[in-house]
Amino acid sequence: MAASRPVFFVSDGTGITAETLGNTLLTQFEGLVFDTATLPFVNTVERAKSTVDYINFIGSQTGQRPLVFSTTVNDEVRAILRGVKGLFIDLFDRFIHEMEKELAVRSTHAQGRAHGLADPRRYHDRIEAVSYAMEHDDGASTRDLSRADVILIAPSRCGKTPTSMYLALQHGLYATNFPLTQDDLDHLRLPSALKGLESRCFGLTSDPERLAQVRTERRPGSRYASLSQCAYELRQAEQLYRRFGIPFVNSANMSIEEIAAVVMQEKHLRKPTF
Amino acid sequence: MAASRPVFFVSDGTGITAETLGNTLLTQFEGLVFDTATLPFVNTVERAKSTVDYINFIGSQTGQRPLVFSTTVNDEVRAILRGVKGLFIDLFDRFIHEMEKELAVRSTHAQGRAHGLADPRRYHDRIEAVSYAMEHDDGASTRDLSRADVILIAPSRCGKTPTSMYLALQHGLYATNFPLTQDDLDHLRLPSALKGLESRCFGLTSDPERLAQVRTERRPGSRYASLSQCAYELRQAEQLYRRFGIPFVNSANMSIEEIAAVVMQEKHLRKPTF
Repeated sequence: MAASRPVFFVSDGTGITAETLGNTLLTQFEGLVFDTATLPFVNTVERAKSTVDYINFIGSQTGQRPLVFSTTVNDEVRAILRGVKGLFIDLFDRFIHEMEKELAVRSTHAQGRAHGLADPRRYHDRIEAVSYAMEHDDGASTRDLSRADVILIAPSRCGKTPTSMYLALQHGLYATNFPLTQDDLDHLRLPSALKGLESRCFGLTSDPERLAQVRTERRPGSRYASLSQCAYELRQAEQLYRRFGIPFVNSANMSIEEIAAVVMQEKHLRKPTF
Repeated sequence: MAASRPVFFVSDGTGITAETLGNTLLTQFEGLVFDTATLPFVNTVERAKSTVDYINFIGSQTGQRPLVFSTTVNDEVRAILRGVKGLFIDLFDRFIHEMEKELAVRSTHAQGRAHGLADPRRYHDRIEAVSYAMEHDDGASTRDLSRADVILIAPSRCGKTPTSMYLALQHGLYATNFPLTQDDLDHLRLPSALKGLESRCFGLTSDPERLAQVRTERRPGSRYASLSQCAYELRQAEQLYRRFGIPFVNSANMSIEEIAAVVMQEKHLRKPTF
């Protein structure tokens, strides 16, 4: 087996941008093994020095030249980091100069901006959206349902809950979800609380095999988890969506992020992220 | 007022990497106004062409040259996107070649890898972590508490719930949270369910003014929201944390992402992200 290559995501803030950038690039090298670590809050000369020492130590211990993805913006900090014994990939250096030229202004070089408390209003909205999503999970509350940006509907275990939470937490959307009960599915009708809110609804389906597998983990051997029951519920759900003109997607092979991206795209829910 | 500059995040997948990268760079240009839009799933030649047409249309409508951040990997798609009338910032082009050289292999050019269903096991764990975090929110359940990776404790409205959800959703951590009640705070003791789990605990505090403001939105004019009550609770909470040797952070001016980064750092909870 090939030795794993050490990879470091170095940031003056949370490390989220460096991780996202680095991981995206690493996914393009299938078959290689990487050993990743995030080093956040490297925002002083002292921390930069100890970061370089640490990375050099790991490099010499493993005998593998580290990859270092950095999103730090302070010039002094970066000058030190650049001296690391490894491939140093500097987001800031690469892009900021041509952006300065294009925008005809100097950049501020302010640290830790990307995932800090930039806009208190937007931040507040996001916290409220999380509360709302939690209160309304799985049809638990019908209070203020008309406030919902989107209402996910689906048979049990198609991904409603994590997708709602993701939409709330990452995008500040008021996302709720409702289960489709046996009764709803048998009669091809929407839960009565959703009357008049059809245009906010988005449906999820799955593959019968996939759904049976997920349900089996919860309740092995139950009718609920049987392939025939899963196939029935999914078939009825899809008919229900079509009947009410509700857009839907098969979530069987999609990540939460992908489902969320499709929902926002279909329902025109993308708020400016900046 | 300056006209806002149109910015597009173009991706063959969810658009998350392009957004993260682009937004991070844009935060370095304070005072400028940007009008951002995400264009996900641009993964065919046809979509690339219509994307270019759309961006060019917006550029000519607004009279402002667009900035375009792209993370698409398909060569044909990129060749088309590169023809857009704007500043085209191509993540892939910039970094992948030197990574190929360093790693001595060709990259796979596989589309939509970054936020797709790369690792089903890890994905499953994450969904389970979200269920766990929701079930255990605000001390709602003590079932399986020893399974928790971290237990956030704090007076009401210091950020426990969104931080737990974030840790679960983004990092697959089993994160729970417990409120500190008046009784706990008066007697400087931990909730009894946490006995023996002190080493999993992490405390949050806030500033009295900030906390009073947040609580006032919920229950205006209440004792709960009064400055004196908030100051008392925070003082006691801090004493409680010190008494039990529980690490803590003041969340008053921190984003969810920043709180989460500190918690993971302090409790050594960072799992490899790749």
